[in-house]
Amino acid sequence: MIVELLMIGNEILIGKTQDTNSNYLAKRITKYGHLLRRITTIGDDLNEISKALREIISHQPDLVIISGGLGPTFDDMTLQGVGLALNRDIKLNQTAYNSIKKAYDQAYKRGILKLEGMTKERKKMAYLPEGSTPLPNRRGTAPGVKITEGDVLIFCLPGVPMEMKSMFQSIILPILKEKRGKFIEKNFTFTGIGESRIAPYVSETEQKFAKLWIKTHPRLGEYGAEIEVSITALNVENGEELADKAINEIKKIVLNLKGKIVTKSK
Amino acid sequence: MIVELLMIGNEILIGKTQDTNSNYLAKRITKYGHLLRRITTIGDDLNEISKALREIISHQPDLVIISGGLGPTFDDMTLQGVGLALNRDIKLNQTAYNSIKKAYDQAYKRGILKLEGMTKERKKMAYLPEGSTPLPNRRGTAPGVKITEGDVLIFCLPGVPMEMKSMFQSIILPILKEKRGKFIEKNFTFTGIGESRIAPYVSETEQKFAKLWIKTHPRLGEYGAEIEVSITALNVENGEELADKAINEIKKIVLNLKGKIVTKSK
Repeated sequence: MIVELLMIGNEILIGKTQDTNSNYLAKRITKYGHLLRRITTIGDDLNEISKALREIISHQPDLVIISGGLGPTFDDMTLQGVGLALNRDIKLNQTAYNSIKKAYDQAYKRGILKLEGMTKERKKMAYLPEGSTPLPNRRGTAPGVKITEGDVLIFCLPGVPMEMKSMFQSIILPILKEKRGKFIEKNFTFTGIGESRIAPYVSETEQKFAKLWIKTHPRLGEYGAEIEVSITALNVENGEELADKAINEIKKIVLNLKGKIVTKSK
Repeated sequence: MIVELLMIGNEILIGKTQDTNSNYLAKRITKYGHLLRRITTIGDDLNEISKALREIISHQPDLVIISGGLGPTFDDMTLQGVGLALNRDIKLNQTAYNSIKKAYDQAYKRGILKLEGMTKERKKMAYLPEGSTPLPNRRGTAPGVKITEGDVLIFCLPGVPMEMKSMFQSIILPILKEKRGKFIEKNFTFTGIGESRIAPYVSETEQKFAKLWIKTHPRLGEYGAEIEVSITALNVENGEELADKAINEIKKIVLNLKGKIVTKSK
């Protein structure tokens, strides 16, 4: 599947919060052989949400995962934005209402919350774009949303990492697994020669193994300046075998050029 | 200024690398009173780069900061993508060529590199879209690029954090400071009452102080479940004073509801 992420939250854009949700999702999307093509990060702004989602849909991904802005406060406006983007009215969803009410009733009974019943703000979380399926939130109160627009499957998850991960694991991970492709990554690190020294040989190897991505990452590591060679293959037949072959060829070149292959101590 | 970021790198999209560059930039853009409106993250793909930059330009920001994909290897194709997006040819820039050659000559003389002279890959970094101004890279070899498209000022910085930060500090930070606005943030944290309990009062306060952003962040902190109230103001007259007033009003409400204001030990 081709996947895009839409991360929503002013706290990310002002630099207050380092977004780690997209990295968590990226790892898992890739692990199961899907292509994460783009991550878009915007603030809690109705027009921005609507505009960004329309742009994403125009790219025709198979799956869109939205995270953030589902909470009870007025500044959580993801679902209104989704409704605006898809031209769908926002309506009270009885299933969502019941699950929110249940969560608050339980929290009240257990003494976690001091306010009983459904306030306007709590009720707000049950207003979903028409055609939505609410998704249970086991770690919080705001339900997630599943909604289909043409061929595009859209999920709205909470932004709080614990809630996002829990909902992702129970709802989206099974889909990624069911439609899984194959992703392979092989890498090694060397020192002693520069990135531009190895570059022409890497280019040749890349041309020879046309379906592999070969990338060099220069960085300051435990051995001083070092270069990581990373080979990845997404849904390539015999990818494992090809990647091993390519890695071995590049290792030989590194050694011929008097570079030193280093094994990480960690 | 209204700013957008374009982060380029397959390693981010496959989840191998946690992007921290955008958070670094977000903090500084905000600190000097500018609005970071969107972060777009894509892979090293010519068409994606071109498409994403065209979309960004269509939003008419004042400033676009691109990071990543300036290196010597074939998979670094940011400048080709920028050229494609702006319909500009990629041509050898003599200033860039000279600075790259100088960097490599020095590294060779100091014994850091074993290969002398300008290879095809090293020369590649001097090919810039027409109309570009090359920017010196004090921490690496790939020059950055400044380019203007209509009213949009575009900078291309390296993706390696050390090089990106150095170039940002010497070239972009002075511009952010020169055109500075005023950003204010005030916050406090409380426990004992839930987010939806405080929500209606926060809404009222927000309506009263219409120019402030007031946001509540629930999280698991050192005192268990806690809520942070964060008030920010971007380029608001008397923002400091208004934010203090609003914070005090919300603190009073929290105390009236029997919530407890906590002071962080860190």
